[in-house]
Amino acid sequence: MDLHIVIDPAQPRGEQLLRQLRGLIRSGRLATGAQLPPTRLLAEQLGLARQTVAEAYERLTLEQLIEARRGRGSFVRALPAAEPETPPVAPPRFASAARIAAFEQLPVPLLRFVDNPLARFDFVGGSPDPALFPHEDWRRHLHAAQRQLGQGSAHASPGGLPALREAIAEHVAYARGVRCSPADVIVTQGAQQAFDLLVRVLVGPGEVAAVESPGYPPVQALLQAQGARIAPVPVDDEGLVTDALPAGARLVYTTPAHQFPLGVAMSAARRRALLAWASREGTVIIEDDYDSEFRFEGQPRDSLQGLDGEGRVAFVGSFSKTLAPSLRLGYVIAPPALREALLNARHLTDVHGPLLLQSALARFMQEGAYRRHLRRCMAEYARRRERLMAGFAGPLAPWLRLLPAEAGFHQAALFKPGLAMDAPQLAALARRVDVGLYPLQVFAPEHNGLLMGFGRVTPEGIDAAIARMADLLS
Amino acid sequence: MDLHIVIDPAQPRGEQLLRQLRGLIRSGRLATGAQLPPTRLLAEQLGLARQTVAEAYERLTLEQLIEARRGRGSFVRALPAAEPETPPVAPPRFASAARIAAFEQLPVPLLRFVDNPLARFDFVGGSPDPALFPHEDWRRHLHAAQRQLGQGSAHASPGGLPALREAIAEHVAYARGVRCSPADVIVTQGAQQAFDLLVRVLVGPGEVAAVESPGYPPVQALLQAQGARIAPVPVDDEGLVTDALPAGARLVYTTPAHQFPLGVAMSAARRRALLAWASREGTVIIEDDYDSEFRFEGQPRDSLQGLDGEGRVAFVGSFSKTLAPSLRLGYVIAPPALREALLNARHLTDVHGPLLLQSALARFMQEGAYRRHLRRCMAEYARRRERLMAGFAGPLAPWLRLLPAEAGFHQAALFKPGLAMDAPQLAALARRVDVGLYPLQVFAPEHNGLLMGFGRVTPEGIDAAIARMADLLS
Repeated sequence: MDLHIVIDPAQPRGEQLLRQLRGLIRSGRLATGAQLPPTRLLAEQLGLARQTVAEAYERLTLEQLIEARRGRGSFVRALPAAEPETPPVAPPRFASAARIAAFEQLPVPLLRFVDNPLARFDFVGGSPDPALFPHEDWRRHLHAAQRQLGQGSAHASPGGLPALREAIAEHVAYARGVRCSPADVIVTQGAQQAFDLLVRVLVGPGEVAAVESPGYPPVQALLQAQGARIAPVPVDDEGLVTDALPAGARLVYTTPAHQFPLGVAMSAARRRALLAWASREGTVIIEDDYDSEFRFEGQPRDSLQGLDGEGRVAFVGSFSKTLAPSLRLGYVIAPPALREALLNARHLTDVHGPLLLQSALARFMQEGAYRRHLRRCMAEYARRRERLMAGFAGPLAPWLRLLPAEAGFHQAALFKPGLAMDAPQLAALARRVDVGLYPLQVFAPEHNGLLMGFGRVTPEGIDAAIARMADLLS
Repeated sequence: MDLHIVIDPAQPRGEQLLRQLRGLIRSGRLATGAQLPPTRLLAEQLGLARQTVAEAYERLTLEQLIEARRGRGSFVRALPAAEPETPPVAPPRFASAARIAAFEQLPVPLLRFVDNPLARFDFVGGSPDPALFPHEDWRRHLHAAQRQLGQGSAHASPGGLPALREAIAEHVAYARGVRCSPADVIVTQGAQQAFDLLVRVLVGPGEVAAVESPGYPPVQALLQAQGARIAPVPVDDEGLVTDALPAGARLVYTTPAHQFPLGVAMSAARRRALLAWASREGTVIIEDDYDSEFRFEGQPRDSLQGLDGEGRVAFVGSFSKTLAPSLRLGYVIAPPALREALLNARHLTDVHGPLLLQSALARFMQEGAYRRHLRRCMAEYARRRERLMAGFAGPLAPWLRLLPAEAGFHQAALFKPGLAMDAPQLAALARRVDVGLYPLQVFAPEHNGLLMGFGRVTPEGIDAAIARMADLLS
């Protein structure tokens, strides 16, 4: 007997074999009472391991489609009651239909834009250069962490490994003027999880949350999912316009070091006004410090958290911009009064993160490799920033104005008024010459400009891309 | 000048140096105009790297506490305005105070009991034996994954790496009779994150969610945090009592293969009744299949998901029981109608999990190492289960009755009526003779019995511990 079975070696083999055997039996091509080939024979015929065939037979036996007769082989049994092979046409009815639909309609796909580089010269924001990743150092610390950790089955604290919490506390005190102890640090799965925990603990449905406008879409989507009333607050060249803050907000989300997306830094006066307002209103301030470890000019500005004498600023940081987003490591420095609530929320969400990566990062930081890496990145991004600024001051000056930014690895550029082309048109054209541009309109419809990330373009690439942009515009 | 600075080599050094220098300046012991020692000198004196001292000086310069005078050294500046050094006495006022308190009071600490082994013979539930972890195989696949993945900066799908989704789809089809394609698989940070995503997408505040009673506390705590109305449904020796299901539930959480904590399997009649009820009510069924890859006897029972013709069962599995909880890897097989909503919820929660571990696990599964590992664990846990059953049928028979379980690595034992000792008393006594016992009352106050996990006790250990328990009881 020669069964008609075709195995695609690029797909899981056992599953293909099982599916086709099932099909042959259910369709009747292998009729009741028919004998299946011995496992060794079928394995040879299909180029499979004998174990794979044996496991498929075992499975079909469990499904009561075949039976083993001792010393004689495997035989097809009488067919069980028909089972639907195709999914139902009408989707099932759910009591939660409205809620499911609300989650389906969240503006999430917008945020998936870094999945694939868009072009050879890709000015995507928020993405570090993979070529700068410290592979050798990282691999060494990862392997050491693996050897030491083994895979004990113990759960750990939802706040993360003590060694990593200590290293982060030291880093933010040093680099960002944050006042904290290791106990205040909660290691998170990237900054996004920190925002999620804070939103859960602070905002119920119908309650007010203030955000910067234009601002960071993932936080707005989170608040929308939670049913919060979102109060957008404008941003000008001193950052968040504190006079426009709403009453009764449970939280305010802000990016004082490097406003997302416009890039401006919040002035000292606005910082004081924001802290005073939050104290009057009983509001928690979420300070998103996503990429301000890269500081290029201006007087160093410490974090809002460092200015806060009351314990109402939650400082959120990330290793996605300084190392790699695929590590999924970030943190929140929790105000003491929120710490237990946030740890409980983290415990309920996913208990804690994988220990191996936490342990590797702790070693990497403790041994100074993180600071060395930051210095190296800093020097490289400073070169890129200079090329970008030169390009906007030179070839692109007739059309676009670069907004100032002291820190971070993107800057915003606004079209000068009265031009025939707008940012989405330019972006569409630029893709044809292999330049990836990102209109600011994604973040706020009233802004006609571009978000110019320089994390993924070399200095030479920036020069080349700017020449191409200038060609398109003229 | 000899600065009084003491460095504890076991603590982060730069931070200690910085803190003490700051203190010396702020307290006036290093007065305005005083010169600091050259970095090389202070580094030698304290046994630090010169770079550490230089960084501390750089930081103090940024804080405007010292200034560098070219060619002469670093000097203490006039003191800036006083800064509060101690945290405020009264905690700050928060508009979200009630919500924060609710999160603080969630019954989460209960769930942290596996942090430390309680005793030499520890019958903790839900914890696999770390000694069975396949270190060599895992390390090999992890290193290969690291080499291949590098640390590209790309984000990935919130559903997880395609290779892992494919391997999981094949595994659950084969091992648990689940009907799915790789696109239905969402890789999660342990099973807990799968529950969290499902609860978010399905249940709003005030809406009804049904759970087994006694049941799994983390899911109840999640529902409580979400503000759901929790409807406890009793369990008998056929599993969930389907006649007692409430009206209008958005979801029902159940453990049909191996009820948590009692261990019984849901009967075929109850499975059909549950599916019919859910179809009438528009309810989503969460099938928690946490440890039933370990099946020891009885007719194989496929998953509820495999019986469901409508697409209303979300099947949740975990690698915490079969490999190690520190990996934080689980999955949900999403009904097609929930898939997009769940992916969006995952994206908002933490974007996706770390790619390295997903890639390592995909390789580990694809190459057959996972099945080999399961077979090895299965044989070992079967031996332990036999010893446990022998002990309860023998020395412990006068006092305790073991409830039947076909699968999983714990069984529940109930005290026989009319005894002088109850389970918490026995547990307290047993700790003194190095036996860790867990009263069922943690899960339901009306149950006088024990949860006997055999994941962390060897067969010989089980015999020894049972002898000690019998001694205590007689």
